[in-house]
Amino acid sequence: MDIALLGGTGDIGEGLALRFAYHTTHDVLIGSRDAGKAETKAEEYEVELDSRGVETTVEGGTNADMAALANVVVVAVPPYYVDDTIEAVADELDEGDIVVSPATGMDRDEDGFHYSPPPAGSVTEHAASAVPDRVELVGAFHNLAAGRLANLDAPLDIDTFVVGEDADAKSIVTDLAEGIDDLRALDAGGLANAAEVESLTPLLVNVAMHNEGLHDLGLELK
Amino acid sequence: MDIALLGGTGDIGEGLALRFAYHTTHDVLIGSRDAGKAETKAEEYEVELDSRGVETTVEGGTNADMAALANVVVVAVPPYYVDDTIEAVADELDEGDIVVSPATGMDRDEDGFHYSPPPAGSVTEHAASAVPDRVELVGAFHNLAAGRLANLDAPLDIDTFVVGEDADAKSIVTDLAEGIDDLRALDAGGLANAAEVESLTPLLVNVAMHNEGLHDLGLELK
Repeated sequence: MDIALLGGTGDIGEGLALRFAYHTTHDVLIGSRDAGKAETKAEEYEVELDSRGVETTVEGGTNADMAALANVVVVAVPPYYVDDTIEAVADELDEGDIVVSPATGMDRDEDGFHYSPPPAGSVTEHAASAVPDRVELVGAFHNLAAGRLANLDAPLDIDTFVVGEDADAKSIVTDLAEGIDDLRALDAGGLANAAEVESLTPLLVNVAMHNEGLHDLGLELK
Repeated sequence: MDIALLGGTGDIGEGLALRFAYHTTHDVLIGSRDAGKAETKAEEYEVELDSRGVETTVEGGTNADMAALANVVVVAVPPYYVDDTIEAVADELDEGDIVVSPATGMDRDEDGFHYSPPPAGSVTEHAASAVPDRVELVGAFHNLAAGRLANLDAPLDIDTFVVGEDADAKSIVTDLAEGIDDLRALDAGGLANAAEVESLTPLLVNVAMHNEGLHDLGLELK
């Protein structure tokens, strides 16, 4: 499968790119608004993977060019860029393509981080309203610590949650996620359940802030 | 320490009562609006504990009578009873007593369960505004599955989150929680961070609904 990571030069994009390239045989495409930046980062990822004995080609280019080549398009950008990023690639999305939204909205005040969703109820639902009707939007990868993903020596052994309205699209994203070693993908239901999934991210950050020795936290349901 | 479980005849109250009595040496007091119901349940808990070789006295009585005897008062009632329950015991709370709020607000629609906080931002903050100034309110035990707690054969090996404004009170509740075998208490910061903790409960229920073989879920941060 061809997986485009829009904003693939950012920290969560880097983590997902390295994990997909390292643990799976999917083709990984790095998108950015700046094609040159994407190409440079893609080469960096290739060097990192090569140093671990994985010879693979990671392609880089504009978000639109990478979306055009992909079956699964992950919108790995901050929540306030989700609209512009989807709009920039919309014409390249074909019937049957799947768009994946991992973003979550957070505010910070003196107490810590707080979930701050857009009026749609969650960033995932907002993204779903922004994609063309011919593609399915699935929420996944919301609560993964970017640094931990990007460090291929760091063990995962954690869960991610998948939300969406189309069972087939969710199944494809679930398989994609579980292609990453020691990542379990759990079905959290429809898009309307995305807010509870996204809310976990500020909780994980707050707990890391307040407990010595805990950082880059994930979680396992049990 | 003397721990009163207001609403200790309900399912989360039962789970906490049995776990505190089984794993710790604290005195457990079962409160209810109906003293007779509390006494009957307290006897049931004694029988269950005795069958496991723990000879202990579990006292039962009105919420107010039990709160009067306790240092730590857990408001183990549904969110819409928190106000009335605190009001009914307020005169019995002494300076230095700690009130613990485990309740979380949820709505259900066809998609699943959704976090539905009161205007205060969370049930925990709402409870904090309802207690007299002379006592501290701490949030804890929000995400524990009642049936799993009440089944003393069920392994825990999970986390609970503690929120509050007073470090000493949080420390006492943390020690109390960790007195339960295989329960880890993590500091999630101030009361303003309670919403992200409470939001976990509907997520756990949604995941249990949508994934075969998963039920009575807890979670471990890692």
